Amino acid sequence: MPFLDTSTAALVLGRADRLAACTEEPGRLTRRFATPALAQAGDLVCEWMRAAGMDARRDAIGNVIGRREPARGGSAGTVMLGSHLDTVVDAGRYDGMLGVLVALACVERLGDDLPFAVEVYAFADEEGVRYGTAYLGSSVVAGAFDPAALQRRDADGVTMADAIEAVGGEPGALAAARRDAADLLGYVEVHIEQGPMLEAEDLPVGVVTGIAGQTRAEVAFTGVAGHAGTVPMALRRDALVAAAGWIVAVEAQAGTTEGLVATVGELRVEPGASNVIPARAALSLDVRHLDDTAREAALAALRDRAEAIAAARGVAADWAEVQATPAVACSPALAGELEAAVEAAGVRIARLPSGAGHDAAVMSRLCDVAMLFVRCAGGISHNPAEAVTAGDVAVAIDVTSRLLDRLAHKHGR
Amino acid sequence: MPFLDTSTAALVLGRADRLAACTEEPGRLTRRFATPALAQAGDLVCEWMRAAGMDARRDAIGNVIGRREPARGGSAGTVMLGSHLDTVVDAGRYDGMLGVLVALACVERLGDDLPFAVEVYAFADEEGVRYGTAYLGSSVVAGAFDPAALQRRDADGVTMADAIEAVGGEPGALAAARRDAADLLGYVEVHIEQGPMLEAEDLPVGVVTGIAGQTRAEVAFTGVAGHAGTVPMALRRDALVAAAGWIVAVEAQAGTTEGLVATVGELRVEPGASNVIPARAALSLDVRHLDDTAREAALAALRDRAEAIAAARGVAADWAEVQATPAVACSPALAGELEAAVEAAGVRIARLPSGAGHDAAVMSRLCDVAMLFVRCAGGISHNPAEAVTAGDVAVAIDVTSRLLDRLAHKHGR
Repeated sequence: MPFLDTSTAALVLGRADRLAACTEEPGRLTRRFATPALAQAGDLVCEWMRAAGMDARRDAIGNVIGRREPARGGSAGTVMLGSHLDTVVDAGRYDGMLGVLVALACVERLGDDLPFAVEVYAFADEEGVRYGTAYLGSSVVAGAFDPAALQRRDADGVTMADAIEAVGGEPGALAAARRDAADLLGYVEVHIEQGPMLEAEDLPVGVVTGIAGQTRAEVAFTGVAGHAGTVPMALRRDALVAAAGWIVAVEAQAGTTEGLVATVGELRVEPGASNVIPARAALSLDVRHLDDTAREAALAALRDRAEAIAAARGVAADWAEVQATPAVACSPALAGELEAAVEAAGVRIARLPSGAGHDAAVMSRLCDVAMLFVRCAGGISHNPAEAVTAGDVAVAIDVTSRLLDRLAHKHGR
Repeated sequence: MPFLDTSTAALVLGRADRLAACTEEPGRLTRRFATPALAQAGDLVCEWMRAAGMDARRDAIGNVIGRREPARGGSAGTVMLGSHLDTVVDAGRYDGMLGVLVALACVERLGDDLPFAVEVYAFADEEGVRYGTAYLGSSVVAGAFDPAALQRRDADGVTMADAIEAVGGEPGALAAARRDAADLLGYVEVHIEQGPMLEAEDLPVGVVTGIAGQTRAEVAFTGVAGHAGTVPMALRRDALVAAAGWIVAVEAQAGTTEGLVATVGELRVEPGASNVIPARAALSLDVRHLDDTAREAALAALRDRAEAIAAARGVAADWAEVQATPAVACSPALAGELEAAVEAAGVRIARLPSGAGHDAAVMSRLCDVAMLFVRCAGGISHNPAEAVTAGDVAVAIDVTSRLLDRLAHKHGR
């Protein structure tokens, strides 16, 4: 194992602590899109970017962008690094921020002989908490922003357009804020794993093969309410028993396909009284796989199964697809360079899919993307207990620096 | 089929309509314990009792009691008839009231040669909606009232003692209000079935064999929350999948024992988000059977099953028994007389258990009890759609009148 720069890692963790103090709610970290707390975090990042010799600015939606020009005469293009600065409610301090801070730490350690420019992006919205639609920041950069979203309102009735203006953005200039793809060499995102696989493999980092496609559906079983004491079992049309049989089937279905995950996270029972046979059970389904065909096959099987269970019980099954996002493959070339950097850092190469969505998935519309996952304690995220070690962060900084170094050689340093 | 007194049945239905107008909420029937709406309904019943030649009064908790003395020289004791006047929220107009009104109709048709007194009870609380504890009215009459309940508060913070006083009752006199058992020949309650069995058998009435014992339990499965996209199936400890497997097992267990009903009516999932693996699934269990041993065996099997499912999945199962009520058998002698009355009325005898609790279960502490169920449309109750036909009500009046006639003969008329 080569020498690891744990003092830079400690600096990264200290900065994550400082960012965590930028919050909408005292006592816990909540930093939604276009809030003063996010602006405050962005100001800190701008300050650190400038201290690292970068030109720092905000674009029309409030993404913070730092740019370091190539060495004199360099014209190989631009490498983009980054992640997001917004958080969920009652968040941890690394989901998103770690990628921005590791990128910044790499820029601080760069030699001055790079043939390409380096840009660091701190996206203004990835989690989608405030407006129920995610990846606002990277969508603007990738030219994928849907202007209809500007009329969405948050829980307080504030439109997205007004929210953007209130923090100094320009809702009318979003289309023009897209990044020109012509000179881009790729986008590389460092992110906590948000899962347990690196911990299970005892590895500090892993290379992401792609970002799973995802389907969200709402499934409802509708039977007939009845008195829990007076309706014999044979005459019941119990919506919850139907739903329960199907939930068991969802798990079994996921078990038939390597890499498939399927989750029922929400379930509401109506009328929901201990002495009333459930008339309705409405639940959420979340299915993800790196291969869209496998995901779609699983969905079709689960839909058939819901209908078969419902038919056998004399209840109705309703199925509504809420959202479907295709899988995104990381660029084999760029991920290959990242793997080589991992190996050079003395770490066994682990390839793993990302079950969670990331800005990299949106950025793949613009250019090649690669992602490096960093082990997080217990696989826990979206939780104040989110934790990384300085040692693992040092590996991430080392690997990302080596990647930039490899790219510099490749592009004629 | 003998002549049926459908005009009296129509009178009963008309009175049910008038009682339904005594409500706490305009536009729907809600008449909880110790409310002005209940007092208003009780006033109507008192008026009808007096018109039928009864002495009418209220006891210390607000039960309305009508008494008709025996024929001169009669000293065979007292037959009690009745049911309750309180309702659930957004109730139907027959659950409870039908038993009071059929009793009243029978008294109006009685000859003047009965060797026993007849008392009609209109209990002030059976549903337990306001104070979360049921059978308050019959508990006072049976001497089973728990004085600690007087300190319970309703949703507005009003104690039961204050509520009783506010409608003219005497909370301090409840113990003394118990009915002396010495002269009682029995308590007979007419009630809508609240289930589908008479409808399935195409019968207007049925004789209740007993009131099922009931256990309510709260069962919780506790696993580990996780990201729906990043935690592979093999590493999950999903509380909802465990609960779902158990819900399926609850239904299967009920299927192994004739007459057993087992219901999961409530289920709450935490944290309850579509993209989060459930950490906790808390549910209600309601198990009923006419045989306490069968009910207890089913509960033990279900508890073992919950623990086995939990152990196999690395989740925890917690079990809390909330309430256990033993079964009550109707008096074979009194139910036998009722069966004979049904047969004499030209109706095939159907014997069925009551899965719902009734005042008769509490009154069984005081004297012999019997119950006559009346078919209700679709088995629906606790719902404005509750419905009975005039024809079925006429049969119930006929049968109950025949029962009183048989008892009069038996007691030396």
